[in-house]
Amino acid sequence: MTTKRFHAPDSEALDELYGDVADADLQPLWMLEGLMTATPAVRPRSHVWHWSAMRPLAQRCGELVGISRGGDRRVLSLTNPSLGGKPYATSTLWGAVQYLQPGEVAPAHRHTPGALRFVLEGSGVWTRVQGDAVAMAPGDLVLTPSWVWHEHHNSGDEPMIWFDGLDQPLLESLDAIFFEPGQDANVPREVPSRSRSEELYAGAPGLVPIGSRPEVDYSPLFAYRWVDTDRALDQLLLADPKSAVALRFADPTTGRDVMPTMRCEMHRLPPGAATAPTRIVGSSIFVVFSGTCTVSLEGETVELVAGDMVATASWDEWWFSSEEGCDLFRVSDAPVIESLGLERRSVRQS
Amino acid sequence: MTTKRFHAPDSEALDELYGDVADADLQPLWMLEGLMTATPAVRPRSHVWHWSAMRPLAQRCGELVGISRGGDRRVLSLTNPSLGGKPYATSTLWGAVQYLQPGEVAPAHRHTPGALRFVLEGSGVWTRVQGDAVAMAPGDLVLTPSWVWHEHHNSGDEPMIWFDGLDQPLLESLDAIFFEPGQDANVPREVPSRSRSEELYAGAPGLVPIGSRPEVDYSPLFAYRWVDTDRALDQLLLADPKSAVALRFADPTTGRDVMPTMRCEMHRLPPGAATAPTRIVGSSIFVVFSGTCTVSLEGETVELVAGDMVATASWDEWWFSSEEGCDLFRVSDAPVIESLGLERRSVRQS
Amino acid sequence: MTTKRFHAPDSEALDELYGDVADADLQPLWMLEGLMTATPAVRPRSHVWHWSAMRPLAQRCGELVGISRGGDRRVLSLTNPSLGGKPYATSTLWGAVQYLQPGEVAPAHRHTPGALRFVLEGSGVWTRVQGDAVAMAPGDLVLTPSWVWHEHHNSGDEPMIWFDGLDQPLLESLDAIFFEPGQDANVPREVPSRSRSEELYAGAPGLVPIGSRPEVDYSPLFAYRWVDTDRALDQLLLADPKSAVALRFADPTTGRDVMPTMRCEMHRLPPGAATAPTRIVGSSIFVVFSGTCTVSLEGETVELVAGDMVATASWDEWWFSSEEGCDLFRVSDAPVIESLGLERRSVRQS
Amino acid sequence: MTTKRFHAPDSEALDELYGDVADADLQPLWMLEGLMTATPAVRPRSHVWHWSAMRPLAQRCGELVGISRGGDRRVLSLTNPSLGGKPYATSTLWGAVQYLQPGEVAPAHRHTPGALRFVLEGSGVWTRVQGDAVAMAPGDLVLTPSWVWHEHHNSGDEPMIWFDGLDQPLLESLDAIFFEPGQDANVPREVPSRSRSEELYAGAPGLVPIGSRPEVDYSPLFAYRWVDTDRALDQLLLADPKSAVALRFADPTTGRDVMPTMRCEMHRLPPGAATAPTRIVGSSIFVVFSGTCTVSLEGETVELVAGDMVATASWDEWWFSSEEGCDLFRVSDAPVIESLGLERRSVRQS
Repeated sequence: MTTKRFHAPDSEALDELYGDVADADLQPLWMLEGLMTATPAVRPRSHVWHWSAMRPLAQRCGELVGISRGGDRRVLSLTNPSLGGKPYATSTLWGAVQYLQPGEVAPAHRHTPGALRFVLEGSGVWTRVQGDAVAMAPGDLVLTPSWVWHEHHNSGDEPMIWFDGLDQPLLESLDAIFFEPGQDANVPREVPSRSRSEELYAGAPGLVPIGSRPEVDYSPLFAYRWVDTDRALDQLLLADPKSAVALRFADPTTGRDVMPTMRCEMHRLPPGAATAPTRIVGSSIFVVFSGTCTVSLEGETVELVAGDMVATASWDEWWFSSEEGCDLFRVSDAPVIESLGLERRSVRQS
Repeated sequence: MTTKRFHAPDSEALDELYGDVADADLQPLWMLEGLMTATPAVRPRSHVWHWSAMRPLAQRCGELVGISRGGDRRVLSLTNPSLGGKPYATSTLWGAVQYLQPGEVAPAHRHTPGALRFVLEGSGVWTRVQGDAVAMAPGDLVLTPSWVWHEHHNSGDEPMIWFDGLDQPLLESLDAIFFEPGQDANVPREVPSRSRSEELYAGAPGLVPIGSRPEVDYSPLFAYRWVDTDRALDQLLLADPKSAVALRFADPTTGRDVMPTMRCEMHRLPPGAATAPTRIVGSSIFVVFSGTCTVSLEGETVELVAGDMVATASWDEWWFSSEEGCDLFRVSDAPVIESLGLERRSVRQS
Repeated sequence: MTTKRFHAPDSEALDELYGDVADADLQPLWMLEGLMTATPAVRPRSHVWHWSAMRPLAQRCGELVGISRGGDRRVLSLTNPSLGGKPYATSTLWGAVQYLQPGEVAPAHRHTPGALRFVLEGSGVWTRVQGDAVAMAPGDLVLTPSWVWHEHHNSGDEPMIWFDGLDQPLLESLDAIFFEPGQDANVPREVPSRSRSEELYAGAPGLVPIGSRPEVDYSPLFAYRWVDTDRALDQLLLADPKSAVALRFADPTTGRDVMPTMRCEMHRLPPGAATAPTRIVGSSIFVVFSGTCTVSLEGETVELVAGDMVATASWDEWWFSSEEGCDLFRVSDAPVIESLGLERRSVRQS
Repeated sequence: MTTKRFHAPDSEALDELYGDVADADLQPLWMLEGLMTATPAVRPRSHVWHWSAMRPLAQRCGELVGISRGGDRRVLSLTNPSLGGKPYATSTLWGAVQYLQPGEVAPAHRHTPGALRFVLEGSGVWTRVQGDAVAMAPGDLVLTPSWVWHEHHNSGDEPMIWFDGLDQPLLESLDAIFFEPGQDANVPREVPSRSRSEELYAGAPGLVPIGSRPEVDYSPLFAYRWVDTDRALDQLLLADPKSAVALRFADPTTGRDVMPTMRCEMHRLPPGAATAPTRIVGSSIFVVFSGTCTVSLEGETVELVAGDMVATASWDEWWFSSEEGCDLFRVSDAPVIESLGLERRSVRQS
């Protein structure tokens, strides 16, 4: 937004007026540009990060920087260059790569931004969510929603790397960020078996325990396992094995999104499949979990392999195609856009 | 409701008035009794049916009465003796035992009353629900919601017996019953593998297919398998192995009840457990699936074994206890009572 | 529902079987008729009650029968002759004429059936609803929802007659009736000015007081005044002065129906207007408030004047037409039918 | 958010790593400050604008700057000095003073940001909303929700000044801004009588027209008149004449907020009243409509008169008190905060 410096020829009176207006902490609308634009004057543009660059950097950080160096987490945040230096992937979404060495513990804390983890590599890690020990393995989606205590433990022999998705930029826009560090706890170090959350809510679809559930607006199921996601996608492919299929991760007791601010999905493109060129209001981060594919972003195509990450900006056109097939994890701000009545979509017949 | 025949001594004018009132299709409120009662003047009382009596009768019907004899179904309806001859278990719920011989087909039809099947014995049977072939086995819950086409096939070598639950009495009260016979279809006779409904919706809790779902108010998942129910109940018992646990069967995409008119639950009492003496507004039918237990109905106790069925009437006090443990299927009109704002519950500290 | 007495020729075994079935409190479905019918086998038929008959009878009751004679209320209930003697207008709705003499008090009580009053004649009466004094005048709709304390006082010089609508038959079907008599209270006898309910909720549309509202599922506004209803109908007519218009009475804080079990509407037919021939699932009672009209009930037409009442049964076809114009109050069970997913409508192009 | 420039003594390897991280469009979390803060690191602070400064400036703009000078509107936007030059009152809300001379027309356009007008001075102005002519007068609230066509006409003899509230900053954060200029229309210039919106929806509380309403998520009632608001506030004061009372402006058909992104309220403090010191997540703009009062903002007090405007920032403590009484209009982002599950409130016992 910049101020037009157009003046009429004899503008002394105007100059004085504009000076007085500024002194009163006001601005004249007619001197402002870029406020109301035909389509979103989107600040971030879509962007791609490649695994071939991120993976070695994460490892080097693991070697050089201790977990307690600051921030409690060894995290490299996706920094969309069109966002003016902010460590954000899109206007509403934080994306990052987190790296945890064997024996390390990322200590307990909680914050109002909701977070989710989609695991890319490694084993032996578990996250305590409200005291419940939740194991992590590649392809799993693990939730640490708004204001729940959480900490990460690597009790195994190899590092783990996962994708972090947060609604931090949105909550910053809303001035709604609260944070609280946890206390050091004497936590057993062995990898737990099944979490209480899964015992209660991962039984089978449509089986809801009767009894007291806390009054929360996020999913009480904190982990969605790859083995289930993989099998469910295969089932969807049975009806039409040549088209892309997709699942939404939902609160199993209500069908709502896992958090009020973020939607998670898993997409599978069978070999030869493509999605339609699409513009939507709102932004997403896609993470390639396996296979290879091509993404088209505003007409520019980029080749992708496992681990690559794509931020799609609001109203940018994007589509995916895959020769050999691929699996894509997606997090988006769709629940926000929908609850505020701002949905808009344009699909081009390709 | 009966008319009080109290008259004042010189009541000639009153007699004439009451005659004129009746001629005008009116009734004086003050001559009516039993309209407003301190607690529900429940017409049906709670009642028990024993498997030892029902099982042989169902088999004799199978031998003597063809499937096409009438009504399209070989069904013995639970007839609560306190309901004046109506073939209903409670004021709102129909319960029945259905018996299907090897090779028999119960032909296609549809009706606005919603129906559900809880399988007690047998194998080789499958139900076509909206064209989707759904296998049936003991402990499974199979749905045929309002106005969906359905038919039953026994392609196996032995009879199958299941419990039928319907909201027929409720829909009769509301004058909302519609029925349509189906057409003879040339349907393949082999037992199907997995239904399309399960491929789509039985993947894992919280995984919802993205795409077009019909706009219906019932669960798109038509079968809940015993193996899942059994395992989920075991999981619930881990936290407190000595207390009764229960699951509600829900629409996996919304968490709502399987139909707007009926709630289904599965209760497991471990050895030595008991439920609290409870009165609620609304009625239920319980079916003992395995084990043995005792039910107390308004203070009277009855011993129950697998296959026994119990209708609990509105505001009757009931509770269950079990020495050796048992599993109980339950269907109730709770969604109706709740959506109309009529819930009321009294739990006695025993 | 009657039992078919069809027997196969040599039916000794069948006879014995049927006897044993009956002894076990069971009935064979194939021996029952009328359970599942193509369209609702509606027990009540539509029916009309004429004011010319009801008005004098109400007055004679007022003269001959004291208010304390029984039932706490001087009420003549609309008795649909097709309902087998039950004092009900339809399967789900109670309709009645209530008559209160000058100086009389209908004492306080409460019951789970919800009630509403639509005033036809008189002045000087007020109803205490949860302690709040609500004045009554012709054309007003006054609510006494489920389980709220209420009593009626006539502090004026003339009798008042109003229409009572209740969901009593529905709640009887659901075994959900509770009743509690009130205590004699020393209540001031003068006509109150404006009720607290109206002070809070009748300000203007869309102005909702901020603060504590009791958690109830009925409207917190207990009275809808004729002056408002009349003017709002006139406003609706401005756009198309020749067509019938209608208002739904709603909870001003949520837009939902005034009670979870009953919908209230006011219909205005300008001279020459008619409604479309309609069948719906569910029943209604119409009360002519002013003007004259003709109702067609399953093809039979009846002339109506102010005070006449019409019960329309489920799936009966009905429509109204008016030469000189008329106003019709309507109460229906539509919220019940809709919340249970049973809506069905057939409109004939006339 | 700033990057910590802390380096370990021998940091050559680190320097190289950080360079490579930056080259890959990544940032190390542990080098970032201010991301997660104990309480919101609120960028805007609360701020006050005084009518004594704004009023003359608006008039001078009216004299010196034509309506068609740019931006289609003669608007001075509240520019919170703590927002780095952005013409916004808070992180989510735009506030402004709009000035329209006699005979002027602010031409038609539409935009996804929703807007509302609260009139402060003048007469003879009307706004066309979706073709519906809505008159404006002091104290009225007039809505032009997201994506509806609107234009302003001054057909009177004096200027009008009103407060504009928009969700523009929020929609900019979400990259959801669309804009479309309207076409010049040959619109009649006389002041209209009552709008169609008011004919349909301003009848009386709880009277909802039956028939087709567009499927929108904003209020179909576009104007809330001061005469109604004033009277409704008086009614609320009857119960406790010494305490502050407040109304929420709501969709009269649903009770929801007037738009999904903004809540409007009117507060009346009787003489001597005060509100409790409060912190909430989310921001508001208050406009003094009449009377005088004092606002306390994070402990600093400011005297206010009619026309003064106050932006309260998220989690700042604020409260109002008034010696002689006052009326306050308020717009807030509360519906956004609530629908995303971010409510948090701290009320200090003063």
